Amino acid sequence: MKALIIAENNQIQFTDKEIPKPKENEVLVKINAVALNHRDQFIREGKYPGINPGTIIGSDACGTVVETGAKVDEVWKSKEVLINPNIEWGENPQVQSSKYHILGTPSDGLFCEYVSISTEKIAEKPAHLSKESAAALPLGGMTAFRALFHHGNCQKGENVLISGVGGGVAQFAFQFALAKGAHVYVTSSDELKRTKSIEIGAKGAFNYKEKDWVKDAKSKSGGFDLVIDSAAGDGINDLIKLMKPAGRIVFYGATQGKPQNLDVHRMFWNQITLQGSTMANDDEFKAMIAYVKKNRIEPIIDSIRPFDEIIDAFDKMKEGKQFGKLVAKF
Amino acid sequence: MKALIIAENNQIQFTDKEIPKPKENEVLVKINAVALNHRDQFIREGKYPGINPGTIIGSDACGTVVETGAKVDEVWKSKEVLINPNIEWGENPQVQSSKYHILGTPSDGLFCEYVSISTEKIAEKPAHLSKESAAALPLGGMTAFRALFHHGNCQKGENVLISGVGGGVAQFAFQFALAKGAHVYVTSSDELKRTKSIEIGAKGAFNYKEKDWVKDAKSKSGGFDLVIDSAAGDGINDLIKLMKPAGRIVFYGATQGKPQNLDVHRMFWNQITLQGSTMANDDEFKAMIAYVKKNRIEPIIDSIRPFDEIIDAFDKMKEGKQFGKLVAKF
Repeated sequence: MKALIIAENNQIQFTDKEIPKPKENEVLVKINAVALNHRDQFIREGKYPGINPGTIIGSDACGTVVETGAKVDEVWKSKEVLINPNIEWGENPQVQSSKYHILGTPSDGLFCEYVSISTEKIAEKPAHLSKESAAALPLGGMTAFRALFHHGNCQKGENVLISGVGGGVAQFAFQFALAKGAHVYVTSSDELKRTKSIEIGAKGAFNYKEKDWVKDAKSKSGGFDLVIDSAAGDGINDLIKLMKPAGRIVFYGATQGKPQNLDVHRMFWNQITLQGSTMANDDEFKAMIAYVKKNRIEPIIDSIRPFDEIIDAFDKMKEGKQFGKLVAKF
Repeated sequence: MKALIIAENNQIQFTDKEIPKPKENEVLVKINAVALNHRDQFIREGKYPGINPGTIIGSDACGTVVETGAKVDEVWKSKEVLINPNIEWGENPQVQSSKYHILGTPSDGLFCEYVSISTEKIAEKPAHLSKESAAALPLGGMTAFRALFHHGNCQKGENVLISGVGGGVAQFAFQFALAKGAHVYVTSSDELKRTKSIEIGAKGAFNYKEKDWVKDAKSKSGGFDLVIDSAAGDGINDLIKLMKPAGRIVFYGATQGKPQNLDVHRMFWNQITLQGSTMANDDEFKAMIAYVKKNRIEPIIDSIRPFDEIIDAFDKMKEGKQFGKLVAKF
């Protein structure tokens, strides 16, 4: 079968691999569509721990069950499924174990034609979604779901700010918060992304590169109950200023690095929460898909291309001009 | 009646005031004992907003009801009571209102012979406590109770670190966590305070001025589920290193100022919480006293002196050598 691997010198390239055989509790899934995450491009750039040349990369896929192991329930036969990219989250729903990692590095991932996987790690594709849209969901959807609900406790009617709405996780957080009935605001330095966010349902969209954006956001929103962020850096102090008392800032990344002069005085007096978050547990994978199904959420897709052209999608991600997920299909 | 006021130029001095008359929903309380908080000394040093010369200072007192207003239930007659120092916390249990302040600045406080106060703001003194011990409870006990339970969700069997155990709030947090059945560790730069903490029940006591204290604390405890802190500053990164995954750091002050280079990467990967906290709502005042009663907790008292000598207690607090609350009695 065709597979995309990370080779020596961090080159990504196609190779030929054997089609796996399902074990007794596994199904063989023929993959129909896959989606990119920033993680994949970071691996290509050598910016990820545990890179292992020869590994099939990729964490997001939708496929069809084409063969079932001896102990697998008949119900899975021919089902279209999504794959949970978690490996060894562990027993504690609060936090991942020390063995935790994600399909696609250092273990083989999903940018290939077939994968054999335990039925514990699959969920039925929501019927309202195409294969290509569904493929966009797992990694970003899980990360957003945990940040927004487990840590963020997002409630109907709350003011929620999604920073850096160009990112995949940010867009899922945006859509999930809208579905919850929150008043959602976004930030982006890209005018087109701000305009699109307003079209989708944002109540306001701010350019965090403008000098007065904090004042503007405060006066337009009245302050936020919850912020979902992946930048951190000194901008955290802007977010602290924007919070209503008892507000929660949840961050699942730190692309802007370590904050200086964290405004701890405002934090304790206003009883602000600064909460780290990453990925999600196996129950949240299923809960997220159920939430997407119930609320008929359509992932935002930037573009769909043939799997043979997937390397172009990596190049596009590196440029950062996409709005929505980059999908490749067989 | 005799009262201690903050005069011009931040001098504290005794003065003579009229005994107040209780309104219909109020009781007149003859004060038996009062206790100092760092807040009182900060006011003396001019380091507090809203200082109003002529104001009676003091936030903690225990007294006896000697007169009741027309609409007050008979049950309060002659009761020994503690006074809730909150003013206008407001409707939201999650956070104080913008009008919130504490008895003793800018409103008149409790370092005087009589106070007239609404029955909504009093609670019966736990029977196992002397007047002097009970007087030590309100402000510090409330602050510790909220940090430890509302924000910290302290559970039996958890590893809890109380930093700077010389402080009044820290000592209540220490005792409340012990009563919950947590494994409690403390830090102090003072050897005597570390020794006393071990005698009281700490499983370990670390000197945060020693170079290897973080390594030592990690190896002796295995890491912490919860830290209660009031220092903040760059030491926050030491605390982040000491947390178990999904650990919570709750801070109710920032005596060491703003942290530099906050370790956000470790925070998001380990799903760490950094939570600001201050004081407590009116329900927590009652819940804290019920907790002290149920668990027969004895506040740690450094020394008790006559009210006429209370200014000596301020001087002792400024030196920082006390272990336990500084109490004055009539």
